[in-house]
Amino acid sequence: MKWMSVQTPQGPRVGYIKDGALQPVDASRMQDIVEGKAWHDAGQPIPLADVKPTLPFAPRNIICIGANYRDHCIETGLAIPEKPVVFAKFSNTLAADGDAIAWPEGFTEKVDWEAELGVVIGQRAQGVREADALSHVFGYVAANDVSARDVQLGEAQWVRGKSLDGFCPLAPTVVTRDEVADVQSLGIRCLVNGEAVQSSNTSEMIFSVAFLVAYLSRAITLEPGDLILTGTPAGVGLGLKPPRFLKRGDVVSVEIDGLGSVTNPVHGAVARG
Amino acid sequence: MKWMSVQTPQGPRVGYIKDGALQPVDASRMQDIVEGKAWHDAGQPIPLADVKPTLPFAPRNIICIGANYRDHCIETGLAIPEKPVVFAKFSNTLAADGDAIAWPEGFTEKVDWEAELGVVIGQRAQGVREADALSHVFGYVAANDVSARDVQLGEAQWVRGKSLDGFCPLAPTVVTRDEVADVQSLGIRCLVNGEAVQSSNTSEMIFSVAFLVAYLSRAITLEPGDLILTGTPAGVGLGLKPPRFLKRGDVVSVEIDGLGSVTNPVHGAVARG
Repeated sequence: MKWMSVQTPQGPRVGYIKDGALQPVDASRMQDIVEGKAWHDAGQPIPLADVKPTLPFAPRNIICIGANYRDHCIETGLAIPEKPVVFAKFSNTLAADGDAIAWPEGFTEKVDWEAELGVVIGQRAQGVREADALSHVFGYVAANDVSARDVQLGEAQWVRGKSLDGFCPLAPTVVTRDEVADVQSLGIRCLVNGEAVQSSNTSEMIFSVAFLVAYLSRAITLEPGDLILTGTPAGVGLGLKPPRFLKRGDVVSVEIDGLGSVTNPVHGAVARG
Repeated sequence: MKWMSVQTPQGPRVGYIKDGALQPVDASRMQDIVEGKAWHDAGQPIPLADVKPTLPFAPRNIICIGANYRDHCIETGLAIPEKPVVFAKFSNTLAADGDAIAWPEGFTEKVDWEAELGVVIGQRAQGVREADALSHVFGYVAANDVSARDVQLGEAQWVRGKSLDGFCPLAPTVVTRDEVADVQSLGIRCLVNGEAVQSSNTSEMIFSVAFLVAYLSRAITLEPGDLILTGTPAGVGLGLKPPRFLKRGDVVSVEIDGLGSVTNPVHGAVARG
């Protein structure tokens, strides 16, 4: 199923896509669906043209993996990691499709894109085996791990340069696991102003989704609503020659086969405070 | 006021300490109090002997500051940082007073304590000035930033070694800002089996609470319920000669003047998965 959270003329709704329309259900938050609570259809299907997608759900934690695509490691000259690189984004980063990407004036000059497959945990995972790991996944969502490279790489810990407001746009649709035949063979792309700057496949991942869920769950109990961002492929702006970063007026999209896309206009530096 | 979340014979309650008893209120979560929602006394005061403190509230984000005490930098040979070191703990780390500190067998051999002053945000802070920053603080809580040193320092990013389940015990009481005359002159201690291993004062902080709130809020909008852990003073186990780490049977307490304490027994390595 493809789940969405939307605004409608009648107010906010959670629902799923059915015959090209949104079928609303009686849950008030997608988190309830993610947690496996019972739901029922509620009301008539609404044409997609009449709904405005919002942030699909509010993850509890945003757990990020770095340097997880072979092609990205080669591009940046990074050694292939022996184990996953784990970092975090704070929840102020969450943004919906269409939300502007902006940053405080004077704070960063190097805002970069990162197309990423997001994994939404649906069942508690604690010390799970890789073979069982995917059964703890609710679904998948396309995400952009927007990064202020000068801040990220100017500090030993990455979280601040990864956690500017709105730096984690999520696609409007969370697609349940059963609709994704093989999560390790999905085309993944980032487009800037329509030009494909990243174009790869989740088959390039060094550590698979199942491995990552099992690995993380050794010491971090994963709960429904935790979001894992699984790293980005080759083609980030920092790796281009010369490097290229987002600027006011750009439009950046992340798209993943079967999961849809998230598109955000770039407003650039704004006054703040 | 001193706010608590407790279990009572009549079920869970949120309340504040009044004349040595717990006065329950009509909020179901301390988060509502933190957000400034209206509340009223609800029922008779309950003797503290009849309540069992639980986790006081569930922070939205746990934003941590490293290397923020002069005495700790000197002890560990770290340079005094020019700007705050920001890192994260995930929410699986939250634990209450009395909860056991344990870790998966084979995962770490070097579990260390860190007494820390926790700052609970009460009003949205976005690009605030240092002079106004404390008005965005709801209150303060004593915390233990328990750390698996071998994992933390064996990886470039600290978050995994900082985020084992239960590695962020919080004291039962959140004390509102108005009850703390000067947050930069509080005695702060860590006791292991009754022996003071850390004994310092928040006056040793390199970056003050007000500075940190303003600094973080430049690019990270802080929301009610965000928790900032402000770093630890000298006396961590890693800095002792020889180094000393927590082991099964230890009891570790963090106490801060006026804020109370959080005490946790150490269960050590446990089988998992």
